[in-house]
Amino acid sequence: MADLFWPGDERAGLHFTSAAFLRAMVAVESDWVGRELEVPDALDEISAEAESGGNPVIPLVRHLREQGTDVHRGLTSQDVVDSALMRMAGAAVADLRRDLARVVGGLADLASAHRETPMVARTLTQHAVPTTFGFRVAAWLTAVLDADEDLARLAFPAQLGGAAGTRAAMVELGRAVPDDVPRWHTTRSAVTRVGDALAGTTDACARIANDVLVMSRPEIGELAEGSGGGSSTMPNKANPTLSVLVRRAALTSPQLAATLHLAAVQQVDDRADGGWHAEWATLRDLVRRTLVAASQTADLVAGLVVHAERMAATLAAAGDDVLAEQRSMAAAAGHAPAPSYLGDAAAYVDQVVARAHRHLEEKP
Amino acid sequence: MADLFWPGDERAGLHFTSAAFLRAMVAVESDWVGRELEVPDALDEISAEAESGGNPVIPLVRHLREQGTDVHRGLTSQDVVDSALMRMAGAAVADLRRDLARVVGGLADLASAHRETPMVARTLTQHAVPTTFGFRVAAWLTAVLDADEDLARLAFPAQLGGAAGTRAAMVELGRAVPDDVPRWHTTRSAVTRVGDALAGTTDACARIANDVLVMSRPEIGELAEGSGGGSSTMPNKANPTLSVLVRRAALTSPQLAATLHLAAVQQVDDRADGGWHAEWATLRDLVRRTLVAASQTADLVAGLVVHAERMAATLAAAGDDVLAEQRSMAAAAGHAPAPSYLGDAAAYVDQVVARAHRHLEEKP
Amino acid sequence: MADLFWPGDERAGLHFTSAAFLRAMVAVESDWVGRELEVPDALDEISAEAESGGNPVIPLVRHLREQGTDVHRGLTSQDVVDSALMRMAGAAVADLRRDLARVVGGLADLASAHRETPMVARTLTQHAVPTTFGFRVAAWLTAVLDADEDLARLAFPAQLGGAAGTRAAMVELGRAVPDDVPRWHTTRSAVTRVGDALAGTTDACARIANDVLVMSRPEIGELAEGSGGGSSTMPNKANPTLSVLVRRAALTSPQLAATLHLAAVQQVDDRADGGWHAEWATLRDLVRRTLVAASQTADLVAGLVVHAERMAATLAAAGDDVLAEQRSMAAAAGHAPAPSYLGDAAAYVDQVVARAHRHLEEKP
Amino acid sequence: MADLFWPGDERAGLHFTSAAFLRAMVAVESDWVGRELEVPDALDEISAEAESGGNPVIPLVRHLREQGTDVHRGLTSQDVVDSALMRMAGAAVADLRRDLARVVGGLADLASAHRETPMVARTLTQHAVPTTFGFRVAAWLTAVLDADEDLARLAFPAQLGGAAGTRAAMVELGRAVPDDVPRWHTTRSAVTRVGDALAGTTDACARIANDVLVMSRPEIGELAEGSGGGSSTMPNKANPTLSVLVRRAALTSPQLAATLHLAAVQQVDDRADGGWHAEWATLRDLVRRTLVAASQTADLVAGLVVHAERMAATLAAAGDDVLAEQRSMAAAAGHAPAPSYLGDAAAYVDQVVARAHRHLEEKP
Repeated sequence: MADLFWPGDERAGLHFTSAAFLRAMVAVESDWVGRELEVPDALDEISAEAESGGNPVIPLVRHLREQGTDVHRGLTSQDVVDSALMRMAGAAVADLRRDLARVVGGLADLASAHRETPMVARTLTQHAVPTTFGFRVAAWLTAVLDADEDLARLAFPAQLGGAAGTRAAMVELGRAVPDDVPRWHTTRSAVTRVGDALAGTTDACARIANDVLVMSRPEIGELAEGSGGGSSTMPNKANPTLSVLVRRAALTSPQLAATLHLAAVQQVDDRADGGWHAEWATLRDLVRRTLVAASQTADLVAGLVVHAERMAATLAAAGDDVLAEQRSMAAAAGHAPAPSYLGDAAAYVDQVVARAHRHLEEKP
Repeated sequence: MADLFWPGDERAGLHFTSAAFLRAMVAVESDWVGRELEVPDALDEISAEAESGGNPVIPLVRHLREQGTDVHRGLTSQDVVDSALMRMAGAAVADLRRDLARVVGGLADLASAHRETPMVARTLTQHAVPTTFGFRVAAWLTAVLDADEDLARLAFPAQLGGAAGTRAAMVELGRAVPDDVPRWHTTRSAVTRVGDALAGTTDACARIANDVLVMSRPEIGELAEGSGGGSSTMPNKANPTLSVLVRRAALTSPQLAATLHLAAVQQVDDRADGGWHAEWATLRDLVRRTLVAASQTADLVAGLVVHAERMAATLAAAGDDVLAEQRSMAAAAGHAPAPSYLGDAAAYVDQVVARAHRHLEEKP
Repeated sequence: MADLFWPGDERAGLHFTSAAFLRAMVAVESDWVGRELEVPDALDEISAEAESGGNPVIPLVRHLREQGTDVHRGLTSQDVVDSALMRMAGAAVADLRRDLARVVGGLADLASAHRETPMVARTLTQHAVPTTFGFRVAAWLTAVLDADEDLARLAFPAQLGGAAGTRAAMVELGRAVPDDVPRWHTTRSAVTRVGDALAGTTDACARIANDVLVMSRPEIGELAEGSGGGSSTMPNKANPTLSVLVRRAALTSPQLAATLHLAAVQQVDDRADGGWHAEWATLRDLVRRTLVAASQTADLVAGLVVHAERMAATLAAAGDDVLAEQRSMAAAAGHAPAPSYLGDAAAYVDQVVARAHRHLEEKP
Repeated sequence: MADLFWPGDERAGLHFTSAAFLRAMVAVESDWVGRELEVPDALDEISAEAESGGNPVIPLVRHLREQGTDVHRGLTSQDVVDSALMRMAGAAVADLRRDLARVVGGLADLASAHRETPMVARTLTQHAVPTTFGFRVAAWLTAVLDADEDLARLAFPAQLGGAAGTRAAMVELGRAVPDDVPRWHTTRSAVTRVGDALAGTTDACARIANDVLVMSRPEIGELAEGSGGGSSTMPNKANPTLSVLVRRAALTSPQLAATLHLAAVQQVDDRADGGWHAEWATLRDLVRRTLVAASQTADLVAGLVVHAERMAATLAAAGDDVLAEQRSMAAAAGHAPAPSYLGDAAAYVDQVVARAHRHLEEKP
């Protein structure tokens, strides 16, 4: 299960592995049939057989029918695949939100601790005006809170429609279906919303990583990753590896989320001829990478080393330049420049930290 | 303003034109300064001058300062651009939702009218089981309702942060800023959420267009656009032009929404060095194309010709084949096949139509 | 190695598996050190250790140094990863082109066989004018030939630059490096060209699949997949599964290729802080999916069932309508309509088939 | 024509404007009819009328037929649109390559001038080993040369197929068509290749801009844009505006190129129902933005200020740390470290500069 192409992949654990997919499909079939079915020990076989029908349910059902001919009766492949994907997604997002809670908690502490730590603000790469590191962290925190609110709003509906969504087989069988299970065979907002929220999550994580990457440049030196990664040839190096890997994920998420939308765009008839199938691996990759990125971000935040003295020194060196705006404002207002030019940065930190605490308390 | 590259572009009216952008920026500056500023008659000039500072605010302010030296004082370019974009987006989404209300109303009527109209369901392009056209329309309607709910949830916050988000200039000037105006210089969820909801909207419109395109194929002939488009050389043709153009838009939206996420991924420091700038035209294109697509979809639905007799004939011709599942279910249940095999399709239509009516009533 | 999320994945064989990546990296290190190193039996361990340095080379070298302290001396991680990726890509593209040769051969035969098989041309889903099935196949074939020409032009350069591309360690060690090995640490055209050509390949495969999906609709019935896939609940169905799965791949390739470009856009300094790392899994997915799609397309073409009689019947039924253009042209030219209205379709078929044969002969 | 949403857009001149599109279509029709037709002064009207048929040719032909009833006879809309797009693309790429020649020339001079200018190499944001600024510029130059080679290979074929590609109308009219004009109604490699090469071009431009953005950070100060942009509120600022705007473009190109591939993926029948239409505006945006970016890059390179003394100082300050690798290599080789650790950087500069000169000489 090692993925040499995506260092850190282990952090995503068993979420959305092929084995987890198999288990989730069996769980869906078990719920439907009302008894716990055994998971066939035939992953490779089912996988190999999945191609001929275009999805893994057909061979799976063949295996499961050894445990009773009533298995799967009334369902269609898409019921099983979609419900299984949503079960897995729900479990993964729950874990993801636990990691984000670590990020939120860590950032709230960091923002509070550095509520008054002065540093220079940078816009378009250049020194602008004074700010505080706490204010910067409050911006990071806002992004993470926004992302987590979107995650919190997600639903992970089961799919129960039968062959074409009409539940004809269920009715013929005399089975009742709970009213609250939706049908969304060709209506994929449940999937695209998950994709969008996951992309929003890696956006927020990258927001932090980008600043760490800039601010841990040796010439700036205001931040450092707690435990830098090494080099295969240069004994001197301590690389901001977590930030690099978080950023990596964020560069791929938007296109994965776009693929989910494109799959939705291809919906036609009562089951799409390719659009549906394009979702599965895409969702898997997006989920696993977001889990990895959030976990790495939590570690990054927990281990972040803040060089407040370096921040102060850079601001001092910037000197009058970054107060040019203040002078012009004070002149316009007809008074001498105030002793500080930090605006309401501290109040903003308090406001965002309070939001973070409310958010953490509200979490289930 | 004619856009020969995007037939139907006129439907988006004045939303997000360069002139509208200019007016929106002047409106932001007017609100800030507390009096109505005149819109400079210098669009081309401002546009040409926008490059040197990287955004149009710097030359605009130069022009506006002829109307008072206090103009823009305390603001930064990003406050003006972001606030103007969000004003425009708010107005555009309001119009978009009006078009979607037309779509919703039209589809609700269509679903009700065809609640019992039998047709063959198709999955993976092949005949599956019987269904009704009303059921199919209910699926379309569900997608549109989901999309509109996402639009309804959007916020279009102004941006008021000053040079680096700290509102230092405002404080220096002694200006109070309402507590409820957020700061999101480098926290772009307000933008990505708009993008995701717009992509969700064209997903939903394409869902309809795809079915019209398939079902209006001459060999199927179950649907037709009310007023087909002509050909430059073949007098015989009546093309499903609205569907084609709606589908066109939907093929481009996911990548535009992805670009907005990628712009968010590039956020760094207190103003991004490119990520911010990539948003403006991207948002413009996504908004205008979605407006066009929704308006075209409303016309498409309003003019849709339903050939119920053809639907019935195809179903009849499919004959026993599409009842094979029913026979196997009935055998399993130990009874003769029921006279119909439509499951709870009609009940589902009622449920979705009721949702549509509630939705239309709740709209502001 | 089973991938339940991507039915048919087995067709990609061992290309770009984690084990293949490990072997390729060891082969690069072996070539460098001038003797064959053993592949460590420690994939999981190396994978788990890859995160701390951000790439798998650092732990791999630790393992390999047990086979001699000179291992890796003078190289940097990126030399090993990039060279290994390109070795794997070169081998995969060679196999891919073998599958495409099967597609080309199959299509050339099909085009020749149906050089005179009349059918109706369809534009914007509607009947247009007469054409031949051979002409349609010639269009498919053109797309595949274009794609394969782009693949044929690809280069898969090794990377040998050392820590920052300057080969300082090699010079210090007194090692000569062949002049023809380029350096492209931050110049990623080698990667984006591969990505673009692979996306072009799935474009071409989808071109075929789309037509099969349309033309195998029961109402059209002009084509059928040789061995249709079944349904989990409907015994009657024969689904065009290969076409569905080919189309699936093509819906995801453009975004993967775009991610490779975006990774190139992030190149900075002497090694990118995330852009490089985003390439590996993206390239893997794109390669494997294209291999699967091309192999499926080859089977699809080989097994395609052509219902020429149905084509003829549809054309006959379309009748005068599809000759309206001819009548207007004949009137303009002042003569009676010619007995056929197929233009130079047959000549075009010959021309494309000849190109295909030249292409197959030229292949290495 | 001012585009306030894309500062610098004026640099793209009249390429791919709606008026240029109209002119190009009239030129195609003129060539076909063998006499020069007048361009109708009816752009807005034609644009408004384009929707009903889904493309601008139908209303255009109506206007042109006032100049002779033989106009357009034998052509189809797609012949005119595709041929016009390719004419425009050909002209635009020719201009683009002129800008890139400026970039190549500028970079070759810069690389030569700084062949021996020492600076510190940075990998993953951290100091690595010594390098030269000339070596860095050689990497930039390589990327631009690679991109320009891809542009040089592009073809811009006309399209002449008639209603369904068979040239039936032409044959009926007794018109000969040159053998060397291809037919590619549903075979879009001509379009995707242009898109890929343009994305490759902005990749290469961003490669330069990224380094300027990093190296012009005040803490690094090794580079500066010749004429920095101002701020709307901070008189002190000199922003690297050109680099910011180049980077902006590069963040949007990959998704535009992906949309062209997705349009190709949607090809079906003898004219695609949406995929074709999605190309036009996408190609327009990609072409114009690349023109702007290349022109800005040429100015950026021409005006670049190199602070060699700052480079030297940073390298000196990095001291022994960046020679750790050298010491370990020298120890392994059993000799004292060489006086310099620049490998074959200078030779590489010479090699790339020579390639640039050959390239410039070969240009048509």
